[in-house]
Amino acid sequence: MSDGLFDGVLAAGPVADLVGDAAWLRAMLDVEAALARAEADAGLIPAAHAEAIAAQCRAEFYDAAEIGTAATEVGNPAAPLVRALTERVGGEAAGFVHFGATSQDVVDTAAMLIARDAVAALAEDVEACGDHLARLASAHVDAVQPGRTLLQHAVPVTFGLTAANWLSGMDGAADRLTTLSGTFAVQCGGAAGTLAALGEHGPDVVRRLAVHLGLAEPALPWHTERGRVATLAGALGGVSASVAKIAGDITLLAQTEVAEVVEQGPGGSGGSSTMPHKRNPIAAVSAAAAAAQAPGLVATLLSASAHEHQRAAGSWHAEWRPLRELLRSTGSAARWLRTSLERLHIDVDRMRANAELTGGYALAERVTSELVTEHGVSRAKAHDAVTARCVAGEPLVDALAADEVVGAYLSAERIAELLDPASYLGSARVFVERALRQHHARKEG
Amino acid sequence: MSDGLFDGVLAAGPVADLVGDAAWLRAMLDVEAALARAEADAGLIPAAHAEAIAAQCRAEFYDAAEIGTAATEVGNPAAPLVRALTERVGGEAAGFVHFGATSQDVVDTAAMLIARDAVAALAEDVEACGDHLARLASAHVDAVQPGRTLLQHAVPVTFGLTAANWLSGMDGAADRLTTLSGTFAVQCGGAAGTLAALGEHGPDVVRRLAVHLGLAEPALPWHTERGRVATLAGALGGVSASVAKIAGDITLLAQTEVAEVVEQGPGGSGGSSTMPHKRNPIAAVSAAAAAAQAPGLVATLLSASAHEHQRAAGSWHAEWRPLRELLRSTGSAARWLRTSLERLHIDVDRMRANAELTGGYALAERVTSELVTEHGVSRAKAHDAVTARCVAGEPLVDALAADEVVGAYLSAERIAELLDPASYLGSARVFVERALRQHHARKEG
Amino acid sequence: MSDGLFDGVLAAGPVADLVGDAAWLRAMLDVEAALARAEADAGLIPAAHAEAIAAQCRAEFYDAAEIGTAATEVGNPAAPLVRALTERVGGEAAGFVHFGATSQDVVDTAAMLIARDAVAALAEDVEACGDHLARLASAHVDAVQPGRTLLQHAVPVTFGLTAANWLSGMDGAADRLTTLSGTFAVQCGGAAGTLAALGEHGPDVVRRLAVHLGLAEPALPWHTERGRVATLAGALGGVSASVAKIAGDITLLAQTEVAEVVEQGPGGSGGSSTMPHKRNPIAAVSAAAAAAQAPGLVATLLSASAHEHQRAAGSWHAEWRPLRELLRSTGSAARWLRTSLERLHIDVDRMRANAELTGGYALAERVTSELVTEHGVSRAKAHDAVTARCVAGEPLVDALAADEVVGAYLSAERIAELLDPASYLGSARVFVERALRQHHARKEG
Amino acid sequence: MSDGLFDGVLAAGPVADLVGDAAWLRAMLDVEAALARAEADAGLIPAAHAEAIAAQCRAEFYDAAEIGTAATEVGNPAAPLVRALTERVGGEAAGFVHFGATSQDVVDTAAMLIARDAVAALAEDVEACGDHLARLASAHVDAVQPGRTLLQHAVPVTFGLTAANWLSGMDGAADRLTTLSGTFAVQCGGAAGTLAALGEHGPDVVRRLAVHLGLAEPALPWHTERGRVATLAGALGGVSASVAKIAGDITLLAQTEVAEVVEQGPGGSGGSSTMPHKRNPIAAVSAAAAAAQAPGLVATLLSASAHEHQRAAGSWHAEWRPLRELLRSTGSAARWLRTSLERLHIDVDRMRANAELTGGYALAERVTSELVTEHGVSRAKAHDAVTARCVAGEPLVDALAADEVVGAYLSAERIAELLDPASYLGSARVFVERALRQHHARKEG
Repeated sequence: MSDGLFDGVLAAGPVADLVGDAAWLRAMLDVEAALARAEADAGLIPAAHAEAIAAQCRAEFYDAAEIGTAATEVGNPAAPLVRALTERVGGEAAGFVHFGATSQDVVDTAAMLIARDAVAALAEDVEACGDHLARLASAHVDAVQPGRTLLQHAVPVTFGLTAANWLSGMDGAADRLTTLSGTFAVQCGGAAGTLAALGEHGPDVVRRLAVHLGLAEPALPWHTERGRVATLAGALGGVSASVAKIAGDITLLAQTEVAEVVEQGPGGSGGSSTMPHKRNPIAAVSAAAAAAQAPGLVATLLSASAHEHQRAAGSWHAEWRPLRELLRSTGSAARWLRTSLERLHIDVDRMRANAELTGGYALAERVTSELVTEHGVSRAKAHDAVTARCVAGEPLVDALAADEVVGAYLSAERIAELLDPASYLGSARVFVERALRQHHARKEG
Repeated sequence: MSDGLFDGVLAAGPVADLVGDAAWLRAMLDVEAALARAEADAGLIPAAHAEAIAAQCRAEFYDAAEIGTAATEVGNPAAPLVRALTERVGGEAAGFVHFGATSQDVVDTAAMLIARDAVAALAEDVEACGDHLARLASAHVDAVQPGRTLLQHAVPVTFGLTAANWLSGMDGAADRLTTLSGTFAVQCGGAAGTLAALGEHGPDVVRRLAVHLGLAEPALPWHTERGRVATLAGALGGVSASVAKIAGDITLLAQTEVAEVVEQGPGGSGGSSTMPHKRNPIAAVSAAAAAAQAPGLVATLLSASAHEHQRAAGSWHAEWRPLRELLRSTGSAARWLRTSLERLHIDVDRMRANAELTGGYALAERVTSELVTEHGVSRAKAHDAVTARCVAGEPLVDALAADEVVGAYLSAERIAELLDPASYLGSARVFVERALRQHHARKEG
Repeated sequence: MSDGLFDGVLAAGPVADLVGDAAWLRAMLDVEAALARAEADAGLIPAAHAEAIAAQCRAEFYDAAEIGTAATEVGNPAAPLVRALTERVGGEAAGFVHFGATSQDVVDTAAMLIARDAVAALAEDVEACGDHLARLASAHVDAVQPGRTLLQHAVPVTFGLTAANWLSGMDGAADRLTTLSGTFAVQCGGAAGTLAALGEHGPDVVRRLAVHLGLAEPALPWHTERGRVATLAGALGGVSASVAKIAGDITLLAQTEVAEVVEQGPGGSGGSSTMPHKRNPIAAVSAAAAAAQAPGLVATLLSASAHEHQRAAGSWHAEWRPLRELLRSTGSAARWLRTSLERLHIDVDRMRANAELTGGYALAERVTSELVTEHGVSRAKAHDAVTARCVAGEPLVDALAADEVVGAYLSAERIAELLDPASYLGSARVFVERALRQHHARKEG
Repeated sequence: MSDGLFDGVLAAGPVADLVGDAAWLRAMLDVEAALARAEADAGLIPAAHAEAIAAQCRAEFYDAAEIGTAATEVGNPAAPLVRALTERVGGEAAGFVHFGATSQDVVDTAAMLIARDAVAALAEDVEACGDHLARLASAHVDAVQPGRTLLQHAVPVTFGLTAANWLSGMDGAADRLTTLSGTFAVQCGGAAGTLAALGEHGPDVVRRLAVHLGLAEPALPWHTERGRVATLAGALGGVSASVAKIAGDITLLAQTEVAEVVEQGPGGSGGSSTMPHKRNPIAAVSAAAAAAQAPGLVATLLSASAHEHQRAAGSWHAEWRPLRELLRSTGSAARWLRTSLERLHIDVDRMRANAELTGGYALAERVTSELVTEHGVSRAKAHDAVTARCVAGEPLVDALAADEVVGAYLSAERIAELLDPASYLGSARVFVERALRQHHARKEG
């Protein structure tokens, strides 16, 4: 049964295929092939048999749906795949298929291959988002934008700083993914984690298997110590969280009344069948929807962590779907964010205009500060005077200039200067530069 | 891309297909056909056009994967489906396809059709579990079994009571599903929930649409008031929770050391490729794994409940996958539990033997009670005397008979009677009968 | 240790106290008193002893912190409370304290008392929100407001309809809470659910206990069938979800650029220490923050549902905190929403002005429809013509009038009429009336 | 309102106090004091004023409950604390309290101090668990124990390997916590993240503030980029997951029928008021219950990650409770596990006896392997022959010796050797040694 109907939104980008049935089949077969070769290298099975086995480890020889159906009998897809593989190999070599291993060894190691490749593809989209954001932060370092707290205008920021803040999220996401490489390790323990069927060759086979597959070699089997799964879940949850922040902001900035950004997609994208004028930020919306899948999936994976004894009675099986979904939805989130950023048109004039919407009220703090720091007025007195004038609602410069307390120290000109958003950006530029430096350092190092 | 590899375990039973792409395509087309007819009935569009539209509303005319891919442009599968449908209809009638509706009307109403049918199929499996449990409770009403608290032996129960407790869970689950019928309502609001394009005919069309589809008619559009989704999520989460309890208990009772139940599946099921003697309770394990998906999915659906204004910027899209998955995994959980129950062999002799494992220690409470109620010993004194002898570890009847306090009031014979599990079952039988009565009342009423 | 620092936001309203330690202590003691009396009524213990016990069942005699600390030994607070109660009762009556019951009976039944009272208080706030929303819907039934989909302007709605949509959420929430009454049932099963220590009197005691406490009488003990907890969790999750929707919309409508509503709180509320002009919608924000706790807590409760055998090895204990928190945060969410609504100032002029922001573009659909339905233009042709003019960005009436296709059928006057938001509200008024009727029907019946 | 009633179970250990109100008050005041000093160092405010401020930054001067109540007005506890502090400072210095900062700066930086200290205390318990497990693994390296997969006996393991597997979980948990140090960074951005009120001194003040508090200096403010919170959540979720695995296994091994371990707590602990013989593994059960809180709390924190613009409208407030709870419950989980391990009595004789329960059936794989590898029988043929004899249920050595295929190659003596669990432990010892080596390497470096 296919699930493609919603995949345009929730399973965009390259990760979707990398975690699909075909990829899983390939990964499980890669494990079987590598296992046979590792065992041949270790002198446990004849090299010719290993090659005979490896020759049959090609995904096109098997049918995922059939394997999935047969999984019903023993409760996992590795068992029927091994059976089918054994049949294809035939002859003497058949006796050495899957030698000494257990189903979980194959599924878990395949999961690591899948996760490694999916994370690599995901990381590429995350990096692309970061690069794009670095360009935006750099290009708009001086573009005044209203700061917004609790969705109310606050003191001004720059769009450069907004983009730098987003960039720090993407760089953090990229860092998370980078540190995962050691997490992707072979699982190989045999029936109960002792590799008893391999005699004394167990550790040697594991080491060689890891080399063959390009995975890490674990100190001991981790069949029921799922720290690796938890680490992966946490990292992907973090990536989705960072995407969600940016996608949400884009959607808010694209609001009709705000209009500081527009997603200008190709042809019909973002259009509405009934409202032809609309420019829905559909890529950002899709990114948010995909990212919203993560918290529940992370919770499911963490809830399934108490694997009983030497193989879990359900918690192992319970991991399969959410791990796949978490990779897929995080991949979709990153890809959609990348698309959104590529489509994004920035309206710096509108940002500037919006920053002046509140006529200086957002900068009243500054008048207070000047009274306190430059003229020795007590903070309470200054704050009360300024507040009183703000509530009034008159043009603020005049109102403040006319105030007994404020007017006593500050001229209308000085007040106007103080209320100019472009002159009250603090360390915005420094922070942008730091974010860019950090980003470029990542790329180089 | 197919997801079938893990479906044997996590998507068993009839629900899987009922929530698949084909079913969704069919449901969306059913909505379009019913909408056209409702509008014709209301005099809004010519009846012939409605029939021309309905004639093209057949799932086999469209390709789910194609629709899914095209969904990327506008962010939902209804829009490209409407386009494809309109093309097929052609001519004048084409102008009346999807008339006055918006994509969300189609997707949400289709979701209700999908959910209604999936819940009906799920309910059948839940009912079958209940019927089977009623038989077990009835058959084993007197079968003594150790009670277990914190996985330690406690005072005895009967397997009849255990099954009755499970039964009450399944009956509760069935009740939840029954009460959902009013939840499945048409969503029809047009571009912003006013049905403006239908002039004054809006409510009339909604009413007729509901009749055509066999869904409830809502007081007003619910496009961004997702109480129905939350209700459905809560009910499915509750069903999965009840399945999880029973599946977990079966797995524990099937433990090698406990061995009070065995899943005797067909041929290879539950076997292990490396340990031919094993009888893994694979159906119960699969039920537990499927049920474990629910809490995270429910959380995702509840987290997506704050739909902004007249159409959510992401939260709507975020519902699609978890709603489908929640139906599918709950369906799989119920089907696997049914399978497990059908396979279950009950070993009442082993239950009785296990109940005597602790040699009466679990019934020490009873000796305490008799001392207190029949012989006026203070509870503290009686408790301390009994406890002191329990710790000793000697054969308990003799130890208690020899105790200064206990022996003063009770003979060894009386103590032996008191420590016989079969004589200390309290209201177990009454509770079983009540559960059965409740179950049969459900079935009749 | 106190947790009060964040309670102003996350634990507002009356529910907080109703789920606090003092309330729990009281509830557990109420259970002990009622149990003794029920057993006296049933002839199991002398009435005088029951009264002696009940006399000591007063919360002020005990120290919650002490009980909490002592809970460490056996793993629940009922056991040390029973010990302390037994000590206070003294004499012969002491032997009948907690007679035949187990700790879980006390904690679970107390939880039901707590939940019942908390839900009643919560329901009052939900009802108050509903009443307020009914007034808003009624008062603003004709107030034109931009419809917004994906945060972009769509065809117009009325604020009356917006409020009616919110109202339907609150009425749904109230309905959920109303249907919970049967869920609040006594749990009484003794050591393993058989009430063995009560001989044949078990069911009679349970019935009388239920009457004494005003709780439902269950068919059988539910110590390890947690459907009731799941039902309660689902309902509270649903209430929080409905609150989240409304709170989110208020926050969005209060945005500086939108300014359609303002929370006008008392004195300092919603102000900013550094930006005196701000009117933060702090009540709506707090409601959203409190409501955001629910999905994770519901998931935790559902995840803890597989209670092993006759008493869970951890899942029971795992329920205590999230059940309390879920009641508390949902209570806080409802109270904050009520506060927000009471503070809410509606700016209908701004709504109308915003509705005209897009200069008719949002109504382009209407021109398309008129061309199709009144003038027989094909939908595709009409849509394309209108779309082409919308993209242009010129004043829309003129642009459309000048269009070859549109102008051929519609005059500028007719186009202007069609683009007037107040004339394109469809069934908005009907839907408002229905929501109000439904609300009033709830209140009456 | 106090929450202490359930704290014995769910808030054990030192973390509980480290995240309590008193600790939060202290942390927020530490931030204010350090801010004043950092600003004095940077030449922004007079050093004497900074000291006057710092002198009032003592927790005992303020009342957490009062602050919590006042938080209602502006929606966070920092604002009323700053007001109270300003009042106490008085005079000219009062004007420099909280200078240039915003409430979120204080709460977020305090949260980092709280988290840093809580994580340090948690890490100590995790390390203690690891040390204890290392001792267990070392002491029982040769103790044969049944391997168990899906709760059914599989091939044997050693308890040393079981403990080593647990140890790898604890070492992983400790590693997670170690890598968090860079996550604990100062948050200081002022009203909108530009530190505008500090002129050009912003970055300098941040740097000095970080030094004063012993926190990391971030590249830019992270007020709405919550990657740090997500990282912390993921790490704590991972620690709880690893605890849950071990606690679950202990509970299973302590089952009456399994009895391989016993928690021997002091005096009353683990006892049952009604069943004096019981030895409930109450510490492990409490660890599991505390650990079960994590997944939902992690989900809540991740769900709250999309902080709008320059300050979130609810998502920030939504973090406070779950962050505190996650630290507290993970702390409780680790402390209870440590307690459980300290109480744990290992019964190696019972393990050995249990390993022989299945009379060699679990080792049938070995006979199959020997037939294949040593005698050239095809795997299928060998497997079928062995399986056939296993189902029979006769004493296995004899049954196999009598088998046509098996008996042709293997003597009864050889079969008996092959079925001896102690001779089929594969690489168990090597894996134990590796886990120990890894553990000791952690401790040293």
